[in-house]
Amino acid sequence: MSLDTPSVKPHDRLKGALANDLDAVGELIRTRMASEHAPRIPEVTAHLVDAGGKRVRPMLTLAAARLCGYDGPYHVHLAATVEFIHTATLLHDDVVDGSEQRRGRPAANLLWDNKSSVLVGDYLFARSFQLMTEAGRLDVLKVLSNASAVIAEGEVLQLTAAQNLATTEDIYLQVVRGKTAALFSAATQVGGMIADAPVEVVQALYTYGDALGISFQIADDILDFAGDTAKTGKNVGDDFRERKLTLPLIKLIASGGDADRDFWVRTIEKGKQQDGDLDHVLTLFEKHGALDAAREDALAWSVKAKTALDAVPQGDLTDMLRDLADYVVSRLN
Amino acid sequence: MSLDTPSVKPHDRLKGALANDLDAVGELIRTRMASEHAPRIPEVTAHLVDAGGKRVRPMLTLAAARLCGYDGPYHVHLAATVEFIHTATLLHDDVVDGSEQRRGRPAANLLWDNKSSVLVGDYLFARSFQLMTEAGRLDVLKVLSNASAVIAEGEVLQLTAAQNLATTEDIYLQVVRGKTAALFSAATQVGGMIADAPVEVVQALYTYGDALGISFQIADDILDFAGDTAKTGKNVGDDFRERKLTLPLIKLIASGGDADRDFWVRTIEKGKQQDGDLDHVLTLFEKHGALDAAREDALAWSVKAKTALDAVPQGDLTDMLRDLADYVVSRLN
Repeated sequence: MSLDTPSVKPHDRLKGALANDLDAVGELIRTRMASEHAPRIPEVTAHLVDAGGKRVRPMLTLAAARLCGYDGPYHVHLAATVEFIHTATLLHDDVVDGSEQRRGRPAANLLWDNKSSVLVGDYLFARSFQLMTEAGRLDVLKVLSNASAVIAEGEVLQLTAAQNLATTEDIYLQVVRGKTAALFSAATQVGGMIADAPVEVVQALYTYGDALGISFQIADDILDFAGDTAKTGKNVGDDFRERKLTLPLIKLIASGGDADRDFWVRTIEKGKQQDGDLDHVLTLFEKHGALDAAREDALAWSVKAKTALDAVPQGDLTDMLRDLADYVVSRLN
Repeated sequence: MSLDTPSVKPHDRLKGALANDLDAVGELIRTRMASEHAPRIPEVTAHLVDAGGKRVRPMLTLAAARLCGYDGPYHVHLAATVEFIHTATLLHDDVVDGSEQRRGRPAANLLWDNKSSVLVGDYLFARSFQLMTEAGRLDVLKVLSNASAVIAEGEVLQLTAAQNLATTEDIYLQVVRGKTAALFSAATQVGGMIADAPVEVVQALYTYGDALGISFQIADDILDFAGDTAKTGKNVGDDFRERKLTLPLIKLIASGGDADRDFWVRTIEKGKQQDGDLDHVLTLFEKHGALDAAREDALAWSVKAKTALDAVPQGDLTDMLRDLADYVVSRLN
């Protein structure tokens, strides 16, 4: 975080610097989520879109395009595309997870039904591809369709990896790329591409988005065990209760060896959890230092993200992206 | 059906004429449904793909490209794309409808779970867009992304139109375009486009696919009330029991006027059906001739499909497509 504005989060500074572009993205989203024939579509979409969300992904596209000197209109299309893909995956995730809340509101699958969430998600996904084609760039289409495939693949992998004690850090990384990093990296990458930035700049923007996304997700998974419920709005240990093998747990299980094996088989594999189990997990975290190890990984990815930015044009937006990478892990202090 | 081969269905003649291309499509589908990381994906996909299905949609693309003289490799990509989109929508449809069977096997949502069907459908949808980009044609991408949007929109519309007595023939037509005709027409259209056929030929191929799809769906909806269970494998009156307002029912409700109003409110709107209701519906069909009226519509669309083919290059494939349009409604005799 820069010293002169210690109280303003980098995310909000990006919002200020990109205000006009973000307005254009919001307008495009509102126009394109309409459906002449099926009013259920804008109802469901507006429920999510109006609830806000931080719009991090579209900001990444806008910032990448702008810092590469782009002054055409299509970064707005691509930013809206990225947000549509994100919204579509949220709708489907909430069906898959049986979620009850999203962005502080009842999830769409509860307000309407799973059917509407599945089909409106499909509609937004199709709309996102329509939007992309308008930018007239096949290379951009390839990146975004690849990202969409990685996202879906990661979600399926997460489904089959859950409750599986054999889950490795490699598998975790693939899941995280699908859940978070693939869309982050595609968002920054296509921003550079639409600006016709040199290939090494586009590559650096990809690396930034990828590392930022991974750092962000690891931090999130640490906060699930070490977070302040008042700040995160989530209960400590939800991932343990849901038997999700996130990085902290994978490290913890590996460091315990055979001694704790029975405990993990009962609580994660068989799902037979009882009072006191979470406390025992928290004690094990203390004992083995697995949360600290995960924190080091998150920091390393954050450093990787910042370092990548050395290869792109420098300026205020670049500084804000750098600060964003710091901010993501600052939540861990 | 041509006179010299009365026993061979046009669909099977197309299969013979396009055998090499269809093999290439099958091979491409098998390659691309793979997932390095998530074996659940090819498991679920293979369950559907191996069950067969008639591959009508990819054949439409192949036939359209070939009859326009195309000899490049990309009609195969587009045909596989069309089949992937179709498979993705089947997976999601079965979740939305809570289906128990698909292509004579237990539906994937039962064998695995709804989650897998939603996410694998998303994966195939993303894969279809990847495949499309390989053909390197933005105009084709626009047509197929538009079709995907129309499909999802039609499904949402069907969701909200169900049980609504105010459903008009216009709304029915929009639903049918989404359910069936949008992918048929996109399939034939992109076949012509990849062959660089003149714009009026591409338009005629679009019209053929659109009219064929509508004719096919109306025929299907008629057979729900008038079909031979042994042949169709479906129970008579399923649509009535599920309160789906298909063309025969819409026509029947309109022709009955106020006299039957209470009956429709009770059985369709309120869903309070009892023994004898379906028999009463079948009696009303006799009285008002609504099935015949729907049959006339199906025939008119079939004629429209055949007439459109007058504007495309003539040959064996064109004849088979013409016969296919006849065959679709021949089931009604």
